[in-house]
Amino acid sequence: MNMKQILKTGGVVLALSLSGGAVAAEPQVPFVRIAELEIDSSQLERFESAIKEGIETAVRVEPGVLALYAVAEKNNPNHIRVFEVYTDANAYQVHLETPHFKKFRATTDKMVKSRKLIDAVPVVLGAKAAAAPSR
Amino acid sequence: MNMKQILKTGGVVLALSLSGGAVAAEPQVPFVRIAELEIDSSQLERFESAIKEGIETAVRVEPGVLALYAVAEKNNPNHIRVFEVYTDANAYQVHLETPHFKKFRATTDKMVKSRKLIDAVPVVLGAKAAAAPSR
Repeated sequence: MNMKQILKTGGVVLALSLSGGAVAAEPQVPFVRIAELEIDSSQLERFESAIKEGIETAVRVEPGVLALYAVAEKNNPNHIRVFEVYTDANAYQVHLETPHFKKFRATTDKMVKSRKLIDAVPVVLGAKAAAAPSR
Repeated sequence: MNMKQILKTGGVVLALSLSGGAVAAEPQVPFVRIAELEIDSSQLERFESAIKEGIETAVRVEPGVLALYAVAEKNNPNHIRVFEVYTDANAYQVHLETPHFKKFRATTDKMVKSRKLIDAVPVVLGAKAAAAPSR
């Protein structure tokens, strides 16, 4: 049960599949947020385990979650950046209310020493995808 | 001519299609780089046009480019962040030598007031994709 949503963003097309979700009637501009987290070094392994579980679940069960990329800065491994792409702002609000996100926040709350959230606007979201139309 | 490469990263699977490219024999850890660019505000429109063209071409012609997401900070539109995912470090080196990247750098060199490059290590790269196996 794979459905496709083609998101036109500027000159480039981001094509992503939504598994088991509704498909928006019209292409939309995705909602992008960047999180910069500083993690208590002694808790880093547990934090990474928690964020893996949270992201895995979100991508699997939330139609509005297009991508959640969590990476560690190579030179500061306890500095975690999460690049988040949702179908729209509403999908982000839905995400915040899910049980898996609430569990993640509760589990990791004391592991996070600082948190910076940056709203962003897509300029171009280019990705390889099976559904990408040839040009 | 779509080929698929399944990249296992931690507990979650990033599944991306490579159009017309070779497929690596073994799953690899993708190479991630984050670029933070401050653009001369008076040149922002031209910069965005150039980066759209550069990213569109890279995603289309480079097998090693998995994702290039360029976004503008909502509260600082001339602060551009690029989240870059390559199949591996070698694919990034290949990218730097392509004509389209060299053209992009030459075109935009004087538009960029500051440039910060951050190497990163994937913790979990979660994305919707048509090829993602169900779990």
